[in-house]
Amino acid sequence: MALIQRHPLLTSAFICIGLVASSSLMAWDGLVEKQNFEIDNFTTQGGETIPEVNVGWEAYGELNDARDNVILITHFFSGTSHAAGRYDPDGEPTGYWDAIIGPGKPLDTDEYYIISSDTLVNLNANDPNVTTTGPASINPETGEPWGMDFPVVTIRDFVEVQRELLESQGIESLHAVMGASMGALQAIEWASAYPERVDRLISVIGAGVADPWLLATLSAWAAPIRLDANWNEGDYYDGEPPTDGLKEALKLVTLNANHWQWANDTFNRDWADEERDPAQDINANYAIEQTLDDIAAARAETSDANHFLYLVRANQTFMAGYGDSLETGLEAIDAPTLMLYSENDLVFAPEGVLHTAELIEEGGSEVTLETLEGNRGHLDGVVSIDQASDTLQEFLQ
Amino acid sequence: MALIQRHPLLTSAFICIGLVASSSLMAWDGLVEKQNFEIDNFTTQGGETIPEVNVGWEAYGELNDARDNVILITHFFSGTSHAAGRYDPDGEPTGYWDAIIGPGKPLDTDEYYIISSDTLVNLNANDPNVTTTGPASINPETGEPWGMDFPVVTIRDFVEVQRELLESQGIESLHAVMGASMGALQAIEWASAYPERVDRLISVIGAGVADPWLLATLSAWAAPIRLDANWNEGDYYDGEPPTDGLKEALKLVTLNANHWQWANDTFNRDWADEERDPAQDINANYAIEQTLDDIAAARAETSDANHFLYLVRANQTFMAGYGDSLETGLEAIDAPTLMLYSENDLVFAPEGVLHTAELIEEGGSEVTLETLEGNRGHLDGVVSIDQASDTLQEFLQ
Repeated sequence: MALIQRHPLLTSAFICIGLVASSSLMAWDGLVEKQNFEIDNFTTQGGETIPEVNVGWEAYGELNDARDNVILITHFFSGTSHAAGRYDPDGEPTGYWDAIIGPGKPLDTDEYYIISSDTLVNLNANDPNVTTTGPASINPETGEPWGMDFPVVTIRDFVEVQRELLESQGIESLHAVMGASMGALQAIEWASAYPERVDRLISVIGAGVADPWLLATLSAWAAPIRLDANWNEGDYYDGEPPTDGLKEALKLVTLNANHWQWANDTFNRDWADEERDPAQDINANYAIEQTLDDIAAARAETSDANHFLYLVRANQTFMAGYGDSLETGLEAIDAPTLMLYSENDLVFAPEGVLHTAELIEEGGSEVTLETLEGNRGHLDGVVSIDQASDTLQEFLQ
Repeated sequence: MALIQRHPLLTSAFICIGLVASSSLMAWDGLVEKQNFEIDNFTTQGGETIPEVNVGWEAYGELNDARDNVILITHFFSGTSHAAGRYDPDGEPTGYWDAIIGPGKPLDTDEYYIISSDTLVNLNANDPNVTTTGPASINPETGEPWGMDFPVVTIRDFVEVQRELLESQGIESLHAVMGASMGALQAIEWASAYPERVDRLISVIGAGVADPWLLATLSAWAAPIRLDANWNEGDYYDGEPPTDGLKEALKLVTLNANHWQWANDTFNRDWADEERDPAQDINANYAIEQTLDDIAAARAETSDANHFLYLVRANQTFMAGYGDSLETGLEAIDAPTLMLYSENDLVFAPEGVLHTAELIEEGGSEVTLETLEGNRGHLDGVVSIDQASDTLQEFLQ
């Protein structure tokens, strides 16, 4: 494992590993290095060709000789391939599912080779730890950013990039594919498009189709970007980006991905500025507004507005399997399936999750459904995943 | 009853009434005329003076000699005083609660004098049937529209305008006050501020305070208006109004006030234009997006963007009774209370409704709670109110 060479405490790390993990040659130390994967002339499902695709990826644990111990993690809308571990040798883990990925954890790096890649049109195009290809990338044919000339890409395109990445490492089958939200869509698409390659499907806070509610919700998320005059029909790369619109879009994501229980547990009715009473000043704010604004501003710094619009579209177009119908797409799935969801999910309605489960079962696969508790709604699938540890461990065996 | 004089079938109306309603001199014929009420030098709770306030009002049924048969209806965020009946003699009823207001209905116009007024900063400032005072009104001191110089107004200010309207008709007490959503806030404020004047409180899809979730939701609704370059810090009355921003704001209201069950029951995944596949064209839309856009565009025509912002603020500042605490405000209520709410309400969380009920009961008033069923979430309090007819009839007796 190349990454451990970067560890500043290499010797003592070896000693610890020797004591703890006898079943593994070398336990994963949690340190992550982002890598790059390139595809020339990638053809989208829509029939367009992207001359050069680059996506970042990272992996935890070791690929075994049979190359059959692979778990693919697919990321959510505002996420990246950073599912576990840390980039900073001296830092705390920053991967979003670090709670379940690592030595001795349900997604056990002593046993599995866990790999995750940045999607096409990844939101965090300006994050130094993200590599993606989308409207903000240079079109090699023009030498300029693609902008809105970038072809529409779909969840299936994300899957095809992942397939090529895996094949480049000689990986032909997956012990499991697991993702949350938009990651669940990719995981479902994997199991539907390549049933012979997917041994287990884990869909977290996701469903088999973008239902009308989700179509409208995603549309509402996109609207502030198009309203920002700086957006300029997507042509802003040599001027001011539409940061205000992007911030409002990200705020809507934060709100919809959470739940009122979280807002009311976390915040109160304090003013943003104790000198400015909102009942006296129409331009004054409440503290919760300011906090959401601050979060959005921080996220906007590493995000790209056009990428946001393309991600919205990728999610909107999703229906499992590109079939004639949702039934066809979901019944194609052969893998035993675990679906984790929240009853308080405001993005993927519970009924849609249950309907997805029914259709997968009608195709002959066994589906295990389990609810996630918490006050975060949709986001409990990301931030509260550890409660499903036992279920995950059992399902993966 | 002055309004019946406008009826083109006056004679036959009299005959019908004679046969049907022996208990009433003259049953209300459903025809409505909007009237105007003016206040000079209205002082807001914030201590500002508005030299001239005009609000529209309408009434159904007749005020009795004792002036004690009055039910006040207070309207919701995007609503008006038009709670029942029709303006067009030949038209269908257009009042939003026509299902429960009228001869023989739970809010029986044979028995009660039912009155409703447009609030300050009413959203529908450009609707010919609405009279309101707000940023779009001319400030008599400058001869120009107020714009963002209009003082912040609160739910309590709305109540004070209504109090003056009622007093102008010699009405000192209310048989009941009833409102939905923002109307519920006004109704609660009435019962808290003037417990001696309110005999019954009916709060529909509302609660005693704007909780943090609602603060943030309202903030998200307002954002698109401020993003629209035409908004121009609220100074657009001699130029192009921020219609695009207002439309997006109204779309968010439509979505939040509904529920995913409605979206998924009503819409499908059709494209807006069968020639333009959203998977091929980043600027193409789905039918649900187009429909929500069309609804918003129609509503934007009669709405004012600054009024929207002031309504958002009026709702945000709401905490019952202007007391030190929510407890003080709600425990001041003396009236027996009926609270109708939806378990699927995405605006006023059910927990907030139940907490409000608890605090009113702690103040010594009896509270009846009843859920509304339907697929509209919050909006079931407006469009599905007829299911509560028996409860309302009983509660009003």
